[in-house]
Amino acid sequence: MKVVITGGTGMLGRRLALRLLAADELVGPSGKNEPLEHLTLVDAFTPAEPPPEDPRVELVSANICDPAVARRLIDDSVDSVFHFAAVVSGGAEADFDLGYQVNLDGARNVFEACRASAGVPRVVFTSSLAVYGGFRDIVDDTPLTPQTSYGAQKATGELMVNDYSRKGFFDGRSLRLPTIVIRPGKPNAAASGFASSILREPLQGDTVNCPVSAETRMLILSPRRAVQAFIDVHNADAEQLGFRRGVMMNGISPSIGEMVAALREIAGDTVADRISWEPDAQIQWMVDSWPWYANGVRGRELGFQPDASIEEVIQTFIDDELGGQIAD
Amino acid sequence: MKVVITGGTGMLGRRLALRLLAADELVGPSGKNEPLEHLTLVDAFTPAEPPPEDPRVELVSANICDPAVARRLIDDSVDSVFHFAAVVSGGAEADFDLGYQVNLDGARNVFEACRASAGVPRVVFTSSLAVYGGFRDIVDDTPLTPQTSYGAQKATGELMVNDYSRKGFFDGRSLRLPTIVIRPGKPNAAASGFASSILREPLQGDTVNCPVSAETRMLILSPRRAVQAFIDVHNADAEQLGFRRGVMMNGISPSIGEMVAALREIAGDTVADRISWEPDAQIQWMVDSWPWYANGVRGRELGFQPDASIEEVIQTFIDDELGGQIAD
Repeated sequence: MKVVITGGTGMLGRRLALRLLAADELVGPSGKNEPLEHLTLVDAFTPAEPPPEDPRVELVSANICDPAVARRLIDDSVDSVFHFAAVVSGGAEADFDLGYQVNLDGARNVFEACRASAGVPRVVFTSSLAVYGGFRDIVDDTPLTPQTSYGAQKATGELMVNDYSRKGFFDGRSLRLPTIVIRPGKPNAAASGFASSILREPLQGDTVNCPVSAETRMLILSPRRAVQAFIDVHNADAEQLGFRRGVMMNGISPSIGEMVAALREIAGDTVADRISWEPDAQIQWMVDSWPWYANGVRGRELGFQPDASIEEVIQTFIDDELGGQIAD
Repeated sequence: MKVVITGGTGMLGRRLALRLLAADELVGPSGKNEPLEHLTLVDAFTPAEPPPEDPRVELVSANICDPAVARRLIDDSVDSVFHFAAVVSGGAEADFDLGYQVNLDGARNVFEACRASAGVPRVVFTSSLAVYGGFRDIVDDTPLTPQTSYGAQKATGELMVNDYSRKGFFDGRSLRLPTIVIRPGKPNAAASGFASSILREPLQGDTVNCPVSAETRMLILSPRRAVQAFIDVHNADAEQLGFRRGVMMNGISPSIGEMVAALREIAGDTVADRISWEPDAQIQWMVDSWPWYANGVRGRELGFQPDASIEEVIQTFIDDELGGQIAD
């Protein structure tokens, strides 16, 4: 199989790549698992973490905002595309034009390239729970009324995935992700970034500010579970998805206070006391527009697994990213 | 006030123009009715009906698919824009690229021009009940899962109207129209066109084929009521609309059989017997993906009025378009 990952050296793209290379298989055009022969990782940015070293991997530094680039990368031999490349929520809110250019036009370039491909590739579009807005509790049929440009752009991408799939141009599916916690690495421009930072920085010995109230809840998912969900949604049977290709990924909903309490229990007072509490009204407003509780029947029926607890999320980070070591 | 209507010489655009010119007022930047000073009717097509002759009217033959054209038409002095220009459902289904080019990129050009304008114009976006799909009964909170490219493009436009309005770039509102019945003039490429044709052609002395079953129901609205709804949604208070700028316009839901029975009662057997019944599976499939019953509380609370009955719809057409004369 030949697979392309856009945003392939980013946080999720890289971890998906490593998982695919280790598994060495993915559901292919035959409808069964097929061996992974070629994996293109395309990214417009310099990798923050070392990309996978593997003879099956091709690294391409390119920007999918150029339709010709998208077409060149997604040629007639491509079987599957994972589209991660995006401007995150805070970035799309700060730079309206850039958000539409990357998140809408860039996605459309990828979709058009898949349409132009000789085959009917499977396309996994990275959506977000930010497509919802104004509803605290969400279910599969909650209307998409995003309150951010990022959410509007992702909802638009989902509409296109449905339409291109209905027309048979590709076999698309969209995965609506909760906030990824704990993101490894440096903070990014996502408005939700603090939810990772308040756990990550103290565990790594740094101080951090929490810009929202302890009562605030967020729907979260660990990177490990997210990567598995991308493989699951890719491998899901098209018939089972039906005409609505957007699947909500359930998360867990600890309050910020519960997240810090779990950190304190696992890592101790010294670590948890590295958090300060200066409110930021803009971030609080944006986070408040996102849902708190998700009950997605479709994702559950498809077998997608959220984390068991906030304790598991923290321990997963310590194991996967810190080699089991907490900074005292 | 200075008003621009895209698709301004089309069926609805022209009738809205005539109504605005007659009323000579519209809610303006002051929040109160202001006199109509200038009305630009822009259209890419040669008018099928004579455009309004009025010193306040400027006719422009141009295509909003060119961003520079949109910007030139919507200059800093524009107060309100009604965006009708679109490729209809059957056309967008037949020509995928043209549909996205006009219905998505063209709308975006209009939105960008309004954003670039010095003021904060009111923008009325013509949406459609085709944004729904897979649900027979629709309410305000029914999720938008369109089953046609036209519906996907209109749902995308609604997302943008919400997002641009939230950012304060313009004061947008989207009106989700039922099928307009009875459309005057020649049949167009709308998949729903037969619903007008089966009434219009017999009333004008012509034979016509009905491509769907007598049991099929459609949500319909007369042109007269539609024009009023556009004025109503334009004049609605932004506060009352809130963050969701898409309002569903309720229609009535006669079956095709009931429509023909009403025609027979009003116009007699000779007229009603001009209908033949050859099914068309493609049209039946597309119409079956549209909703049958609408119960929109928001539109009702805003005071939008559907027609009273199918009999009223037919009589309105005879009065407004045939000068009271039925062809024997």
